[in-house]
Amino acid sequence: MAAGFGFCVTHRDGLARRGVIDTPHGPVDTPVFMPVGTRATVKGVLPRDLAEMGARIVLGNTYHLYLRPGDALVARHGGLHRFMGWDGPTLTDSGGYQVFSLGDRCRLSEAGAEFRSHLDGSTHLLTPESAADIQARLGADVAMVLDECTAFPATPDVAARSLERTARWAARARARHLAIAAGETDVVPSTPGQAQFGIVQGGVHDDLRRASAEATIAVGFEGYAIGGLSVGEPVDVMYDVVEHTAPRLPADRPRYLMGTGMPDDLVESVARGIDLFDCVLPTRNARNGQLFTRRGPLSIKNARYAEDPRPVDPDCGCPVCRRHSRAYLRYLFVAGEMNAAALNTLHNLHFYLDTMRRIRKAIEFGTFGTFKREFLETYSRRNLND
Amino acid sequence: MAAGFGFCVTHRDGLARRGVIDTPHGPVDTPVFMPVGTRATVKGVLPRDLAEMGARIVLGNTYHLYLRPGDALVARHGGLHRFMGWDGPTLTDSGGYQVFSLGDRCRLSEAGAEFRSHLDGSTHLLTPESAADIQARLGADVAMVLDECTAFPATPDVAARSLERTARWAARARARHLAIAAGETDVVPSTPGQAQFGIVQGGVHDDLRRASAEATIAVGFEGYAIGGLSVGEPVDVMYDVVEHTAPRLPADRPRYLMGTGMPDDLVESVARGIDLFDCVLPTRNARNGQLFTRRGPLSIKNARYAEDPRPVDPDCGCPVCRRHSRAYLRYLFVAGEMNAAALNTLHNLHFYLDTMRRIRKAIEFGTFGTFKREFLETYSRRNLND
Repeated sequence: MAAGFGFCVTHRDGLARRGVIDTPHGPVDTPVFMPVGTRATVKGVLPRDLAEMGARIVLGNTYHLYLRPGDALVARHGGLHRFMGWDGPTLTDSGGYQVFSLGDRCRLSEAGAEFRSHLDGSTHLLTPESAADIQARLGADVAMVLDECTAFPATPDVAARSLERTARWAARARARHLAIAAGETDVVPSTPGQAQFGIVQGGVHDDLRRASAEATIAVGFEGYAIGGLSVGEPVDVMYDVVEHTAPRLPADRPRYLMGTGMPDDLVESVARGIDLFDCVLPTRNARNGQLFTRRGPLSIKNARYAEDPRPVDPDCGCPVCRRHSRAYLRYLFVAGEMNAAALNTLHNLHFYLDTMRRIRKAIEFGTFGTFKREFLETYSRRNLND
Repeated sequence: MAAGFGFCVTHRDGLARRGVIDTPHGPVDTPVFMPVGTRATVKGVLPRDLAEMGARIVLGNTYHLYLRPGDALVARHGGLHRFMGWDGPTLTDSGGYQVFSLGDRCRLSEAGAEFRSHLDGSTHLLTPESAADIQARLGADVAMVLDECTAFPATPDVAARSLERTARWAARARARHLAIAAGETDVVPSTPGQAQFGIVQGGVHDDLRRASAEATIAVGFEGYAIGGLSVGEPVDVMYDVVEHTAPRLPADRPRYLMGTGMPDDLVESVARGIDLFDCVLPTRNARNGQLFTRRGPLSIKNARYAEDPRPVDPDCGCPVCRRHSRAYLRYLFVAGEMNAAALNTLHNLHFYLDTMRRIRKAIEFGTFGTFKREFLETYSRRNLND
């Protein structure tokens, strides 16, 4: 374990775990949802709002921050926390996913991923080592290893080769991370005690997932992520992979399901032993007018809300639901006012964070099974007004 | 005076006045700056932020709200305050200025202004009476009469005809306003006790301004505005008009300088006896990257701020200056993040409201002259980085 980082499970309820992660920037109660602050800002909400609604750890994107403003600039300004004005814990991804999805003409080799910037066309090489260097300079509390995100669907053969490389990259990333921490490189970490998580790949193939889990655990990390899901596979397939992969990960380390998901995905995955989540859904969908409620999402631009005096979710205690009607939110969205995005984001993030709060309470009280059944009975994945 | 509305001057310092306006939604300390919430929302800040930074009264635009979502809908949802989630005082303009500047093919007659909506091309007629009706339904604490905003430059002849019509319209608007308040119409006011302000026009011609002031006072209103300024005339000309017009307005009624201005304009105009201001500058310029400081405005996108660790204004205590560097704000702006607009708006409005707070204190202490001299010695109208 990196100094300053720790994890302990305080309650169990079935496979669901209630715990606390200690980070250099303070403790995080798990299971936890991490709002996504891609470019060192969570679109639509300011740090104070995040703190007030109970967000404890925020995600930043290595790919974006490396290209602009640059990890060196962020480091000169005291690291990601000080730069973005968020003094709670943070996590950065490795940039791999964005290199593959946003980088132009991405070329993969054993060394790493060569790509052109989507901003100015300049050529860059991201390696397991450079991803660790960049993240050390950004200085999040948790860094991720560079992995190759296997596309879905992938043949077992392709998935196998991908995860073998991911395993070799994991070992290189870990070696570099430990060398940085030991002061054996010229990289000055912005946050001493930064942890590093490994990533289990393997697509939807159980044997490959097992092999990847074993290889990643063999390297040894402060925590473990399940990657390569929420990439188009059916949810039942995703739940299956989580169900089979989570128990193979060390019980004394946090488990992070990357890029997931809808509110019911969070509940289902906690039930399978997941501790951390991140997803752009609450923020991105807010900007597109999709608002989450306990009964399911609704599309606020729908004409049926033009005269609706009710709050978005009558059961929600967020500042938006306490103050504003659906009619007002619909009007702002249709008028194209930027505050529509701000209010919608505030509500959606509050909904996600409140759902996690309820999950944590249920595990503490040993009533998670009941909570899960009632949540899923009430919650519809489809828009209520479809 | 309308029931629920009142004004008293508590301190004088030269021509500067410190006072309190009582409205159906509570008191307003003057001199006051009113953030502009054109479409029932102040772009970039939420009602809670407005309250926290000390905003006391917010402006809404009759033209925009009449066209969308419609004054009838706003009335059905409890009026402007409840609709926008702002329980403090509000003021609506008459819509005249927007009809002339935004309305397509505007045709003016003695009846009123016929125009096509910029939203859907539909034809509408705004009259002194209908502007009063719409504003009664919107239910702001203060309504404005429909006036003809004289273009600058205007010949004395054109200006004279314009202000004669404005005077006739003022009488019609007042009659309608009183009839609504007396329950003699089928318009149900959303805020009982709404006040109505008259508007003095007359361009830059002193004799016309005097005639307009006399005609408007003869009609009789709860307050008086100086309109038709900040439309392209040199600031010295504006100051002259204010200097000659303000003393002609009743000493026991609030005086409102419409659509002004830069921070030094506020100081100069308070010195000439103005009590209320509104302006889009702090909000609109924030979205364009212009930030106000005690030394003058700066353009945050300038490359010189890329590594600047200082707050926007080292003398400012706003949440943005306490938490974020110029480097971060420049980065957010250049990256096109919506939170750049939110943070810039928060700072600029705070600067404007803080300037007014300092003005009020100075008048209370009888030190407004010193304050004014020091403010103007320090403040530059030109961008600091030009």
